[in-house]
Amino acid sequence: MNIWNDNSNRQPIPQDVLDLQQIVREVQQALAATAVERDRIGGTAKAERDLLRRSGLLTLAVPKAHGGHGAGWPVVLASVRELAKVDSSLAHLYAFQHLMVASVIFYGAPVQQRRFLEETVAGTLFWGNALNPLDQRTSLRPDGDGFRLDGAKSFCSGASDSDRLLVSAHDGEGKLRILVVPTRRDGIAILDDWDNMGQRQTDSGGVTFSHVRVEADEILGPPGPFGDVFSGLRPLLAQSILATIYLGIAEGAFAQALAFSRGPGRPWIFSGVERAVDDPFLQHHYGELWVALEGVDALAARAWARFQEAWEKGRALDADTRGRTAVAIAAFKAMAARVGLDVTARVFDLTGAKATAARHGLDRHWRNLRTHTLHDPVDYKLKELGAWVLTDLWPQPSFYS
Amino acid sequence: MNIWNDNSNRQPIPQDVLDLQQIVREVQQALAATAVERDRIGGTAKAERDLLRRSGLLTLAVPKAHGGHGAGWPVVLASVRELAKVDSSLAHLYAFQHLMVASVIFYGAPVQQRRFLEETVAGTLFWGNALNPLDQRTSLRPDGDGFRLDGAKSFCSGASDSDRLLVSAHDGEGKLRILVVPTRRDGIAILDDWDNMGQRQTDSGGVTFSHVRVEADEILGPPGPFGDVFSGLRPLLAQSILATIYLGIAEGAFAQALAFSRGPGRPWIFSGVERAVDDPFLQHHYGELWVALEGVDALAARAWARFQEAWEKGRALDADTRGRTAVAIAAFKAMAARVGLDVTARVFDLTGAKATAARHGLDRHWRNLRTHTLHDPVDYKLKELGAWVLTDLWPQPSFYS
Amino acid sequence: MNIWNDNSNRQPIPQDVLDLQQIVREVQQALAATAVERDRIGGTAKAERDLLRRSGLLTLAVPKAHGGHGAGWPVVLASVRELAKVDSSLAHLYAFQHLMVASVIFYGAPVQQRRFLEETVAGTLFWGNALNPLDQRTSLRPDGDGFRLDGAKSFCSGASDSDRLLVSAHDGEGKLRILVVPTRRDGIAILDDWDNMGQRQTDSGGVTFSHVRVEADEILGPPGPFGDVFSGLRPLLAQSILATIYLGIAEGAFAQALAFSRGPGRPWIFSGVERAVDDPFLQHHYGELWVALEGVDALAARAWARFQEAWEKGRALDADTRGRTAVAIAAFKAMAARVGLDVTARVFDLTGAKATAARHGLDRHWRNLRTHTLHDPVDYKLKELGAWVLTDLWPQPSFYS
Amino acid sequence: MNIWNDNSNRQPIPQDVLDLQQIVREVQQALAATAVERDRIGGTAKAERDLLRRSGLLTLAVPKAHGGHGAGWPVVLASVRELAKVDSSLAHLYAFQHLMVASVIFYGAPVQQRRFLEETVAGTLFWGNALNPLDQRTSLRPDGDGFRLDGAKSFCSGASDSDRLLVSAHDGEGKLRILVVPTRRDGIAILDDWDNMGQRQTDSGGVTFSHVRVEADEILGPPGPFGDVFSGLRPLLAQSILATIYLGIAEGAFAQALAFSRGPGRPWIFSGVERAVDDPFLQHHYGELWVALEGVDALAARAWARFQEAWEKGRALDADTRGRTAVAIAAFKAMAARVGLDVTARVFDLTGAKATAARHGLDRHWRNLRTHTLHDPVDYKLKELGAWVLTDLWPQPSFYS
Repeated sequence: MNIWNDNSNRQPIPQDVLDLQQIVREVQQALAATAVERDRIGGTAKAERDLLRRSGLLTLAVPKAHGGHGAGWPVVLASVRELAKVDSSLAHLYAFQHLMVASVIFYGAPVQQRRFLEETVAGTLFWGNALNPLDQRTSLRPDGDGFRLDGAKSFCSGASDSDRLLVSAHDGEGKLRILVVPTRRDGIAILDDWDNMGQRQTDSGGVTFSHVRVEADEILGPPGPFGDVFSGLRPLLAQSILATIYLGIAEGAFAQALAFSRGPGRPWIFSGVERAVDDPFLQHHYGELWVALEGVDALAARAWARFQEAWEKGRALDADTRGRTAVAIAAFKAMAARVGLDVTARVFDLTGAKATAARHGLDRHWRNLRTHTLHDPVDYKLKELGAWVLTDLWPQPSFYS
Repeated sequence: MNIWNDNSNRQPIPQDVLDLQQIVREVQQALAATAVERDRIGGTAKAERDLLRRSGLLTLAVPKAHGGHGAGWPVVLASVRELAKVDSSLAHLYAFQHLMVASVIFYGAPVQQRRFLEETVAGTLFWGNALNPLDQRTSLRPDGDGFRLDGAKSFCSGASDSDRLLVSAHDGEGKLRILVVPTRRDGIAILDDWDNMGQRQTDSGGVTFSHVRVEADEILGPPGPFGDVFSGLRPLLAQSILATIYLGIAEGAFAQALAFSRGPGRPWIFSGVERAVDDPFLQHHYGELWVALEGVDALAARAWARFQEAWEKGRALDADTRGRTAVAIAAFKAMAARVGLDVTARVFDLTGAKATAARHGLDRHWRNLRTHTLHDPVDYKLKELGAWVLTDLWPQPSFYS
Repeated sequence: MNIWNDNSNRQPIPQDVLDLQQIVREVQQALAATAVERDRIGGTAKAERDLLRRSGLLTLAVPKAHGGHGAGWPVVLASVRELAKVDSSLAHLYAFQHLMVASVIFYGAPVQQRRFLEETVAGTLFWGNALNPLDQRTSLRPDGDGFRLDGAKSFCSGASDSDRLLVSAHDGEGKLRILVVPTRRDGIAILDDWDNMGQRQTDSGGVTFSHVRVEADEILGPPGPFGDVFSGLRPLLAQSILATIYLGIAEGAFAQALAFSRGPGRPWIFSGVERAVDDPFLQHHYGELWVALEGVDALAARAWARFQEAWEKGRALDADTRGRTAVAIAAFKAMAARVGLDVTARVFDLTGAKATAARHGLDRHWRNLRTHTLHDPVDYKLKELGAWVLTDLWPQPSFYS
Repeated sequence: MNIWNDNSNRQPIPQDVLDLQQIVREVQQALAATAVERDRIGGTAKAERDLLRRSGLLTLAVPKAHGGHGAGWPVVLASVRELAKVDSSLAHLYAFQHLMVASVIFYGAPVQQRRFLEETVAGTLFWGNALNPLDQRTSLRPDGDGFRLDGAKSFCSGASDSDRLLVSAHDGEGKLRILVVPTRRDGIAILDDWDNMGQRQTDSGGVTFSHVRVEADEILGPPGPFGDVFSGLRPLLAQSILATIYLGIAEGAFAQALAFSRGPGRPWIFSGVERAVDDPFLQHHYGELWVALEGVDALAARAWARFQEAWEKGRALDADTRGRTAVAIAAFKAMAARVGLDVTARVFDLTGAKATAARHGLDRHWRNLRTHTLHDPVDYKLKELGAWVLTDLWPQPSFYS
């Protein structure tokens, strides 16, 4: 499993990515060594989370001004992709770390950015997500000089073993607030109830909040969510992360099948050839899947570049630039989902029955992707894109667009 | 999960099927109750195998003359389909019981048929399969007044907890022989080493044979394998069983998704509708998948009828009737595989993310089907069909055609 | 191009179909001889319409009591399919003749049935269609002891060179009325303005009506349109006809490609084989397309049988029987459209570039089908089916369901 | 129909392309005005060929040193794509002009390059193609101090009304030679026998050669065909042109459908919306097709860039750079073919039946693409790519790889 994409026609690797290659490669190899077994047992990957902490990569997206690597998003996403090739659960937790860091930048006031990100660097903090916009059971109410947070959230990826939580809650006026709290604060319970068919080590279970004290300066903003055009990039980063993981999963499945075909794979008895690699139907399948992956890679390159461009505009970001970034990312995500589901299912036609032994874990790629591609329905993503094509109106910013 | 197909346009249910409905229904319900949990743990489903023994269904295909039900193959296959809707591992073991019974009829001399099938009825014997033509490690050699069997076989579905084994081995002249031995005979070791991503309770592990005594009258024949046109129906029955299981799996996944959409399923937040069942894209998906399943059902009906027709010709079966049966079954199998893979993957688009919780076991349908559809490659099945279309020459009989 | 379907696994040919084979075969051959050239020139196929008149087939669906053949619908539709294999324009006109005959039975009072159908037999009348429910420009108003018809209709298949027209119009109370008028009555103008990319000889142009006299007994009913459940079968017959033509077109394209591959077709230079029929990818394509067509054929058989069953219930038809007929036909139509579009496009991959010469007319199948499959959108057909699957409510009867 | 691609996420337009925009736009508009009618009548588009001559674009690829524009290949191909959106026949002739110019550079000695290209500039010469490697009926034999060319070639795009022909022939030793002759030389007959279902104005008919005098310096080389790695780029340019035309055709069909949906298009009666652009299924289709086209565009950008990179290496080109260029172009071509066939067929689902009127010519896109995608089989292109993926060996250079 080569790290970064050394396929000759894919996007060139920027220098700062090259500098990180060795670190990411080591993490990737460590994850790969146990990924099949950990997929089986599920639960919290404590050792691997600690490995990520030690790797220094958790601060990859933290600006240099706050002590981080200050890496560009194409670099961050390239590293996510690499980890997703072997372990998309950990890749997801790792990517959401960067999303949480970015959320502080999108939503937080400068003083909050400094405080929370410098704490992240100083303490090697791992962030968890309790910002699930579909689950509206949390409320934030004034309580003395501060606030009180109550309720529950589902699908809280990375909450277990986290140091900080990003939480969404509605205040007394029905307004959505995003806040930052230490995971170990009184009243917060991580349910550790995630037991899923895929993405099994993303710890995406429930979190409950009972009379949790929240200070005023822990509520992000201004600008807060959708407070300006720039903050509306947050869902686009989330969507980019999803699509990048889809692509990484598909490439991981493809690479595993390829190694099988080149190694223990045997041609069908009626194929008339001696080696699996000479079977004309296998060659045809590999050609088809490779072309499809190449198309996703090309859209990934475009989407990442657009996102970085929009990111660099900062608070000056205009709606048109956001719009064109949104459609670039939507195209990438839609194609990554479709191609990925096809690749992760068809790899078995490339390997044959022997690769279905549980020890290979070849099905985990499909289970992970099938689970992850349900984050928000691709049908509505395509509908939204088509509406834009038909009317020239950019998709309406939301937590999914 | 309704038993038999009560969808109004599907093939009518014959009377003798109706008579069996209650029994099959009870077995189906019992299997359904624990299928998700048993899929998780894998291993030998001893209790469920014993339930099948008690049900009386193991002798469904044994001719009445030998004390069995003497059910027609459309009836047998309809019952396989029902069980596959909830538990395709047990459906496979159950179906292979009937294939083993039929193998004795295809390959055995009349006296052997009587002996082995009457023993099956008398002892409620469960048969296992050690006839894997791709694995050529077994040998049969003369030994005194009998023979000695040595070697090993992989993918021996149903060997664990079986009472009889059907074994293939090459004799000293390189000729393929099919023999029947009691599973508990000295020198036979069931490895119980099946740990797979799908079809997890089919016990399809390895079996080893060390100096196993085989009596001359335990070697099936004449006619033996491919000894006449009729014996060449055996692979067609095997292929029919596979395709029937594919269809049952797909229908089971569809039914589970439908129950979810009608029950806990929620429409997407931007759908503009209150109930999942009113979402236009969901309706479209359900329509598409239903049409596809309807097509497979129609080909199943045709294939089953052709097979029964060929079966009833017995030893008088001619090559043309075999040929047209072969292509009918190949069409059924190819479409069942394609549609099934599509249905079992797309059901998640119908249910959304909540249905990925491990407790639903909704992914087991895809894992089971993905595993089972690798029995022999669909590409070569289609190639074979196309060669027939292009040249008007029937597919060459083999263990896969 | 064999007539009827002699492919060994397809539905058996009923005796009364066999009796008609010779007639239909001769018509088919005559149409085939000039189909490519007539597709080029378009316009009214006067000679071929007269051939149909002379063939005696125009009264195939007229009940024996009124002097017709009284053929069952599976027979009628099988003959439509045969003609569609070589000339789907004429097949459409021919099929609509039977639809018009059936419309008189669905909508007309017994005395009207007798009169119009006996006239049809006596005069060998060819009917045209001016019942386009989407075009609402016609009005029927009282005028002395009769009525006056004014306005226009588009997509009036078969109006040119017809003897009778079936016309829909709204009366003064906004109610839809269906009437029968001689095509040559004063005030009726056939515009002969059909110039389309496909179905070029269906004469599906416009008709205008200026002060056309209509007698009270030319207005069909009771029961009239949707006057009872039975009259609601009319759109199902229309849909069956469409689907049958789709299937015939696809089979015609497949047969033409097959003849090419077996004849002048050459394998690709890098295929390593001498004959096109030995190319593994060609074989694979043929296998795939054949399986797909086999699936459509099986759904056709089911749909035709259901329709005939419903037809035979006559005025006693109940809503459930209509409903299950509707979904059987919808499944057939949806799959015939999809498979047909795929087959008519992919045949070129089977033949290679040389078959694109205009003289072969191999593209006419796709153009005809692409045009015809737009009669009503397959998306809404699938949505309707899915809504039924999800809710168990039969599709609402309309002119398209 | 906007010229160049102003869609916001597609590849940026280089300055020298912008300089040419006005010229290409005018040609495009002139072609668009008559494209539907000319598709109907076929034959040689003399007026449009002369328009291309007057436009100055015929020397776009001629190096500046020889008096041409010296445009890079991404610019040349971008202009081909624009013309293909409205008229893929003329786009093909136009593109092959540049391929012929490049062939002189690939195969010819420096002195030949100077002579033939300066003549091209001076005389505004239009080149035709008689280099069809599959048709081996031409021979070149010594004749006095020169040579004699005899035989025939099929599929000679652009030979009619051409000024120069590039011809392939085998010499007495069986070696392939490429030569340049004036089209009007004695013994050359252009058969004008092209009558095809698509690409109707490419004049791709036959050419015969009877005792045609050929001078020694009209035989290109050294290096001649496949004389070095660089000359092996010629088929890659041919493949790039094909793929670019596929993409242009697909975009043209998409744009025409979009204009229809925004204009006269009506939603289906049961859609519940007032405007076609609000139909959810239409939006979904547009979204899907747009994403697919976006993927092709991204692969086009990559392939064009690779080709230009390889081109700029000139005679120093190495096999690895050629290899990676080959796979980039193959990926682009395979995806452009697949997506294009899908788009040009599905646009009708976007417009509905009214857009099938012959005057819209909406089917010409599919007919053109279906014809053009048969140049060489996509199955073997995918097989070749897969073989490379499996073995790491670059595709073997040939006239198709």
